[in-house]
Amino acid sequence: MSATLPAELAAALKNAAAEIEQTLDALLPLPEGPEARLFEAMRYAAMGGGKRLRGFLVIEGARQFSVARASALRVAAAIEMLHAYSLVHDDLPAMDDDDLRRGKPSTHKAFDEATAILAGDALQAHAFWVLSEEDTHSDPAVRAELVRCLAKAAGARGMCGGQMLDMLAEGAGEPLDEPAIGRLQLLKTGRLIEFAAEAGAILGKAAPLPRHALAAYGRDLGAAFQIADDLLDATASAEEAGKRTGKDAAAGKATLVALLGKERARIQAARLVEQACAHLDSFGERADRLRDLATYTVQRKS
Amino acid sequence: MSATLPAELAAALKNAAAEIEQTLDALLPLPEGPEARLFEAMRYAAMGGGKRLRGFLVIEGARQFSVARASALRVAAAIEMLHAYSLVHDDLPAMDDDDLRRGKPSTHKAFDEATAILAGDALQAHAFWVLSEEDTHSDPAVRAELVRCLAKAAGARGMCGGQMLDMLAEGAGEPLDEPAIGRLQLLKTGRLIEFAAEAGAILGKAAPLPRHALAAYGRDLGAAFQIADDLLDATASAEEAGKRTGKDAAAGKATLVALLGKERARIQAARLVEQACAHLDSFGERADRLRDLATYTVQRKS
Repeated sequence: MSATLPAELAAALKNAAAEIEQTLDALLPLPEGPEARLFEAMRYAAMGGGKRLRGFLVIEGARQFSVARASALRVAAAIEMLHAYSLVHDDLPAMDDDDLRRGKPSTHKAFDEATAILAGDALQAHAFWVLSEEDTHSDPAVRAELVRCLAKAAGARGMCGGQMLDMLAEGAGEPLDEPAIGRLQLLKTGRLIEFAAEAGAILGKAAPLPRHALAAYGRDLGAAFQIADDLLDATASAEEAGKRTGKDAAAGKATLVALLGKERARIQAARLVEQACAHLDSFGERADRLRDLATYTVQRKS
Repeated sequence: MSATLPAELAAALKNAAAEIEQTLDALLPLPEGPEARLFEAMRYAAMGGGKRLRGFLVIEGARQFSVARASALRVAAAIEMLHAYSLVHDDLPAMDDDDLRRGKPSTHKAFDEATAILAGDALQAHAFWVLSEEDTHSDPAVRAELVRCLAKAAGARGMCGGQMLDMLAEGAGEPLDEPAIGRLQLLKTGRLIEFAAEAGAILGKAAPLPRHALAAYGRDLGAAFQIADDLLDATASAEEAGKRTGKDAAAGKATLVALLGKERARIQAARLVEQACAHLDSFGERADRLRDLATYTVQRKS
């Protein structure tokens, strides 16, 4: 994150990341027996890194509706598991073939390819298991709704569909136009961030209006975050970013940065941040962290 | 299936398979746009084949409690999606490296490796989405419970854990003993079959006793089915089985057939079938198909 990150937000992010880490640790205990290796790979993929942006969104969204912290942390951990599985599978040799992730060897490098595929599969199942357990919320309607929304965000009409579009775009030869890139990124990364922002409202049984406002905030934040990520890939060193950079350009990947150039992409990101914050107009001071997050997320250096 | 399959059961199996196929067709509509390729791969993997044993168990289990057929069919389709995803990933080059499945090229052969990984991932998410939708059951507690049990059966303490044990056993050099093989197979294939048998009771809000009885039936049936599968692998031709056979022996895989020999394995399977049927003692004539299924499933030729 940028050095200009407000101290209050920085402390809240650090605090949330530590609590999410503890929750993941508790939800992924190492079992006895040889299958411990699978849990080791799941823990390796899900723990010890990442900004926990998605988990933080859950926690801050839930705080708007005074949801119990323990509930929010379980949902945050579930979304981080889902996100971690997607990174493990994206990094596979048959997909993006990345050896480095969060500054350490990617899961198929630290273990092996078969174990990485399995660990990803098991993390996805585990995320749904966590959401459906009574500990997450006493009302089964809330649990079923969380599962329904995560499944939609993660599946063929969400993240997996976006990844398919990305693969097809790379093979197509001709570059995507702006609407096509926007749609690709909405599916690939946007839907999960949208759900992370909305999840707190689901936990808090919020009325439709505030729930939709949080979802819309998440959608715009996700789009801004993606541009920031692409700018980072285009400008930062691997050491700063903790993963291989410059790979989008090398792969001829369809990004808004490649299409619009860095300056126009920065302007676009700033416009999205403004839009994201506008969705929070009906929220009080309690949403300031969400506003700050949007403002500063596009200025981050890693 | 064997020629000695009773006509009534054969008709019920055929009927259920056709209805499950229709349900899968409706739940996996081809979208507009380039991501259609992902749905094509998902449909290729999930449709047009298989005995639908798991789906049939859901339907027959649900019939014991007079559950609406449409509800049972959605759950049957969800379990078949989950099962299909596991086959797609098991067949990948990094896993079992199988080119043939259900008599046709496996998904990574018909499409490509990256699409197969994604299609499997998306099928898993889709299965949970189907379970969590209101159309599956009007009571959210039922939907959340279905998700919870499927996630457990499919995850690191179920199917994925079993697959991990299987991979480790292949690399270990020394053969597993009988309890270790039993545990491996309970996790790898048993838990999902157990859940399929139990799902009807969850849908029917059955009391704990009949619910546990159906689950126990499923557990024993699954174990018998696995021995039958291994016997088939050891004796049938690829043409009969619709997949590569003899591969367990070639891979030095840990199976009860390899450990006990064919004759003792057959006796073991027969004992499991008896045990499975004993769990249904408190059920009336309506459970006859489940009894017949157990009896005849170990005699099948494919």
